[in-house]
Amino acid sequence: MKTKLEMSASITLPAEVGEEHMVVELAKKWGADAIRDSDGTDLSQEMLDLGLQVYSTTCLVRAEQTYPRQHMDQLPQKFLMSDPVTASGRALVIDPMSGFYREKYVLDLKHAADKYWEVINRTTGERVPVSKWKFDPRTGKVTITGTIPFHVYTVSFLVFQVWDTTSMYNHLTNRWDKPRVISVDPYHKECWDHLMAYYDQYLAAHPQTDVVRLTTLAYHFAVDSDQDSVDKFRDWTGYQDTISVPALEDFAKEHGYRLRAEDFVDEGYYNAACRVPSERYLAWMEFIHRFVVKFGKALVDKTHKAGKKTAIFWGDHWIGMEPYLPGFLKMGIDIHVGAAEDGVALRRISDTPGGLVKELRLYPYFFPDVFREGGDPLSESVSNWIKIRRALLRKPVDRLGYGGYLSLALKFPEFVDHVAELCDEFRSFKDNSGGGESLKAPVKVVVLNAWGNWKAWINSFGAPQKFLVKRPDVIQVAGTNLLECLAGLPVEVRFLSFAEVEKSGIPQDVDVIINDGDAETAWSGGRWWANPKVVAKVRQFIHRGGGFIGCRGPSAFQHQGRYFQLADVMGVDKETGRTLQSATVPAMVAAKHFITEDLDGGADFGTRETFVYVCDPATELLAANGLHVMAAAKAYGNGRSVFFGALPYDLTNARLLHRAIFWAAGKEQELRNWFCSNPQTDCAWYPMSQKLVVVNHSAQAQATTVFRGDGKSSKITLKPHASKWLD
Amino acid sequence: MKTKLEMSASITLPAEVGEEHMVVELAKKWGADAIRDSDGTDLSQEMLDLGLQVYSTTCLVRAEQTYPRQHMDQLPQKFLMSDPVTASGRALVIDPMSGFYREKYVLDLKHAADKYWEVINRTTGERVPVSKWKFDPRTGKVTITGTIPFHVYTVSFLVFQVWDTTSMYNHLTNRWDKPRVISVDPYHKECWDHLMAYYDQYLAAHPQTDVVRLTTLAYHFAVDSDQDSVDKFRDWTGYQDTISVPALEDFAKEHGYRLRAEDFVDEGYYNAACRVPSERYLAWMEFIHRFVVKFGKALVDKTHKAGKKTAIFWGDHWIGMEPYLPGFLKMGIDIHVGAAEDGVALRRISDTPGGLVKELRLYPYFFPDVFREGGDPLSESVSNWIKIRRALLRKPVDRLGYGGYLSLALKFPEFVDHVAELCDEFRSFKDNSGGGESLKAPVKVVVLNAWGNWKAWINSFGAPQKFLVKRPDVIQVAGTNLLECLAGLPVEVRFLSFAEVEKSGIPQDVDVIINDGDAETAWSGGRWWANPKVVAKVRQFIHRGGGFIGCRGPSAFQHQGRYFQLADVMGVDKETGRTLQSATVPAMVAAKHFITEDLDGGADFGTRETFVYVCDPATELLAANGLHVMAAAKAYGNGRSVFFGALPYDLTNARLLHRAIFWAAGKEQELRNWFCSNPQTDCAWYPMSQKLVVVNHSAQAQATTVFRGDGKSSKITLKPHASKWLD
Repeated sequence: MKTKLEMSASITLPAEVGEEHMVVELAKKWGADAIRDSDGTDLSQEMLDLGLQVYSTTCLVRAEQTYPRQHMDQLPQKFLMSDPVTASGRALVIDPMSGFYREKYVLDLKHAADKYWEVINRTTGERVPVSKWKFDPRTGKVTITGTIPFHVYTVSFLVFQVWDTTSMYNHLTNRWDKPRVISVDPYHKECWDHLMAYYDQYLAAHPQTDVVRLTTLAYHFAVDSDQDSVDKFRDWTGYQDTISVPALEDFAKEHGYRLRAEDFVDEGYYNAACRVPSERYLAWMEFIHRFVVKFGKALVDKTHKAGKKTAIFWGDHWIGMEPYLPGFLKMGIDIHVGAAEDGVALRRISDTPGGLVKELRLYPYFFPDVFREGGDPLSESVSNWIKIRRALLRKPVDRLGYGGYLSLALKFPEFVDHVAELCDEFRSFKDNSGGGESLKAPVKVVVLNAWGNWKAWINSFGAPQKFLVKRPDVIQVAGTNLLECLAGLPVEVRFLSFAEVEKSGIPQDVDVIINDGDAETAWSGGRWWANPKVVAKVRQFIHRGGGFIGCRGPSAFQHQGRYFQLADVMGVDKETGRTLQSATVPAMVAAKHFITEDLDGGADFGTRETFVYVCDPATELLAANGLHVMAAAKAYGNGRSVFFGALPYDLTNARLLHRAIFWAAGKEQELRNWFCSNPQTDCAWYPMSQKLVVVNHSAQAQATTVFRGDGKSSKITLKPHASKWLD
Repeated sequence: MKTKLEMSASITLPAEVGEEHMVVELAKKWGADAIRDSDGTDLSQEMLDLGLQVYSTTCLVRAEQTYPRQHMDQLPQKFLMSDPVTASGRALVIDPMSGFYREKYVLDLKHAADKYWEVINRTTGERVPVSKWKFDPRTGKVTITGTIPFHVYTVSFLVFQVWDTTSMYNHLTNRWDKPRVISVDPYHKECWDHLMAYYDQYLAAHPQTDVVRLTTLAYHFAVDSDQDSVDKFRDWTGYQDTISVPALEDFAKEHGYRLRAEDFVDEGYYNAACRVPSERYLAWMEFIHRFVVKFGKALVDKTHKAGKKTAIFWGDHWIGMEPYLPGFLKMGIDIHVGAAEDGVALRRISDTPGGLVKELRLYPYFFPDVFREGGDPLSESVSNWIKIRRALLRKPVDRLGYGGYLSLALKFPEFVDHVAELCDEFRSFKDNSGGGESLKAPVKVVVLNAWGNWKAWINSFGAPQKFLVKRPDVIQVAGTNLLECLAGLPVEVRFLSFAEVEKSGIPQDVDVIINDGDAETAWSGGRWWANPKVVAKVRQFIHRGGGFIGCRGPSAFQHQGRYFQLADVMGVDKETGRTLQSATVPAMVAAKHFITEDLDGGADFGTRETFVYVCDPATELLAANGLHVMAAAKAYGNGRSVFFGALPYDLTNARLLHRAIFWAAGKEQELRNWFCSNPQTDCAWYPMSQKLVVVNHSAQAQATTVFRGDGKSSKITLKPHASKWLD
């Protein structure tokens, strides 16, 4: 059973020195039972004495700033790839740091370049022999001799990171002029010992702290910056910043082979989450994960020994902790805090295995990026909360919290009032649920991709999102796709990797497989779809009665006459320049189908051109733009498949997915148990409390018919954004 | 020098029995000097005596219908691939003919299936051993044993074609009930002898014939039909229908290796024109081409011996004649007739090497598909002619002609009047030009693709055209792309293959390379772009001062961190799921650029989403939709490159290409010699006659400023569609 903090309050408030009276007032208004410090804020004695639970935040690897400045060879390292440079003659000089921010990275002059670095001819793909290139530590440049004119060359090289990524973000966002923070890498034995000693002191110096909130453990996620400090690459789940030479050497000893620079720079794609991971890179991730668990466990043990609890924040230096892998629970963490801007992020926290207390850190963060003259934190919060609440109906969490500068939030009184209502609504959900989850439909869904539990509930945005002009850097685009639709549906969801399917097949209890992602990404699966074992097991699962839902580039991989390897299952394939002279199979959009029954005026699939065509006369076309298939369905043996060209999140598409899952599972007759007729509304039945909640996701009043589990139904009207509990 | 037929008339009229008086009248009205028969029409003695030149049409391989019915093993053969079938157990029965039109194809029961056919596991790509499958000639089915459950299998098999493709089209279009035509394959020695004897008789039986019009030689282009006779595949330039067992055996003897069924069915893609050809398939094409030239020369020699000329029609059984390869001229043909619906088709004829008389067969063909109740042959003709005339300004032909049933055309008197004007305008061009070509700008362009002169001036339509709903079958979509824009520009154009570049580099006199085509097609080049020699030679050409214009998927091939292999040259690359987490380089559309100077209100690039992004800060963005690059320009060494997301034909885009070519060549200062300010108009200067023509391509009156070669200019106003000659 869960060890719960007090039920009725369950809100964590960020405190700020000099705002003590406001902290008291807001704690009351929002019903907070805990206060915490944030980046750049501290707790005064006065606040510690308020009688609230005290969370103290620390990030050990960036906490103490004397050690790193004295041990510059123990800073986090990473492999970078220079810009590709084209030779125009028989020699070439490359400045590897060109295009990178020189205040964040410095070249590693400690370790032999000719051992760790690589120069690659990107025209042929061959490594240039070490004898043909030379790194000059004085100029920082690499000279290559014997280049082939008009071939392209890159240098893969090691750097130290001399500015912590979060610190840099905070400095640039807040225009700070205080000293820059440098992180260290605890993989170095001396550093480890230093951090452990430091943590002992920290615990001793914080007698009034109830919960130490670690932010987080050892390695930051990757944000790379160009020469002007503008983001050029971002991977919130990536292991790019986990490099140290001792770790590379230990890995080689353990595995019997050395990882190359190319294993990390990956042709310049850096093993981003969208890339299908190589076996070698997965082995590295596994290696680092084990180390992080060891590091985390050592800290948790110390915390517990000091009589305190440990919270972990799923952000910043979280790489390697892997909350969905078994190693995570070995650390013994008590409270799991995660930032959440949408339903996917909520599910990311709420679905993690184990009985930890789960706390959401809501957006907006009280920071000047949003809380500024002309900013609109209220709209952002409402939009986030509606999505979060929708998913909360399916998987609850225990606590909410905020972070940042309280003083900034106080300048927006409407926002403060809205948060009070939000907190009340959250507590009403906790109290009315009876402590249990809402009833799920008898349909089990797995999301199949190349990562499985390595990246469960990680949003996979696609090319259309990348091409939106939002801000010049690249960010995870929240709630843009099928996963957000799925986050609020009344079905159990798990994540499964192709490697697991290859080894063990599809688990017996699965009803429907979802494969959603841009073609040739890890989310779709890329080369895994040319793996005969995988593709045969998936086909067999469907043929025997399973359901398959493909979205965007499902099973996409060019192989033996097909782009969609499951074209036989889905009845559609994609034009990639190979069948331009072949006709599509003529098809008309079906006038009526279970999946599209609630569709009123069409759906927005986020694209007008899928270049997907019907390739089988047995395919039922559900939506199309000209010959571009937007949605289709097909029987396959005893099973069924559904294809969606794309499924960006909105309530219409969520309903399409809802119905598609039930149709694919062959359980259409189960749909109208605890179901709302109006797709703008949702309901959830809590068996433990025998209570029903009905919610209105929209900004307009909505009428809806609620179908109960016994086949009876009743009409109900809800105010904008309202939730209503019924017995 | 050209041997010309009479200059002042130069029109070929299709005659029809029973319409003798109309033939006379129309010959006068249209200025015809020749008459010809068409498919399904004959010339009566009365018409032969009219005093006009007589063209007699014959297609030897389908002319005589007794021989084929007595020699059913000498019909044209082809390799087909069955639909892919998924095994659900340990054995599988495939009906190879399922999905094909059984009235067109019959299984080859003469030649051993286990020698020529193949069964392939498309999940693994492996051939199934002959011992594991058996063809039953009684049922026509193949039984495979030891199949792996849920792997996909195909059968590649040989058929005879028992219905000539053109005959089938005519029967279905005209609802004919006369006997079906069967073609034969002259590769069989006995068949060759029969055809030669038949041709001797034919010549003797046509004493009044001046010109024998061969339609065409030996092998039809490919049109495959599904079970309901609907087109499923079409390749107007393809060698799919050139198969015979003796030819396969002779090829094996000559080359020392055997071609497999897979070399022909090509995973089901059938080596369509859009496919990057394999070396083995090109060797087959070369082999067949040599045979066709031999066959053609034998016929031409007989024709000349009989004191007649030979015309060849570039259609129907034309495969293997290859007008842009040196073999073509060896045949000694006198008159080269080609169907033309747009500027590209005109250039296809007018640019062929050698001093042949060139004749256009204009559309619409006098057939019930257009000349029916409610049909609009006039609009089709005007729209075609405007495009043809635009290209005619750059490369002239000698004659025009029509085909089909004259009686059908006569039902559309406005059309008949319009053709009279059209013929007059054509003759005015011939007469005013002084017999020479118009002046070309000092810019030489090559179009670089995987085919070079194998498919010069062949339109490469792309996926957007395939996804238009036009008719259920697949047709060559006329005038849709960059090539149509190019057809009317005042520059010399040649075609070049990657194989030629690999062997000999870029010819010295080339100023600008154009690479235009959907990614991963033969038009773009596919795997050729990973060929280090090719890519280095192209880069070197540009670096030394050459121009490069890429359109759609230029240099697209995934290799070593790039999708566009010339991303360094063009400064743009395409998102294909590998760089979703990498930022684009920020760029603003240039307010002013030489290329876009005549752009007034934007261009229609035929797509809103290119997924092409700026990857180099030196790139000049010329047009964009959000972050989707529509057009960009960049300097590279001493040269320049231009990228277009797509360039469907319209006059705005033609002007963009016009300026892009001059900019890429570094010859901006040469643009305004013999140039019209208004992109709806064009002019051409004929040095031999010292005359200038100005034309209005639009359906509205246009004012334009004409810049002459001496820097002077004058204003002129033109009526809709008008052309005006000036001294």
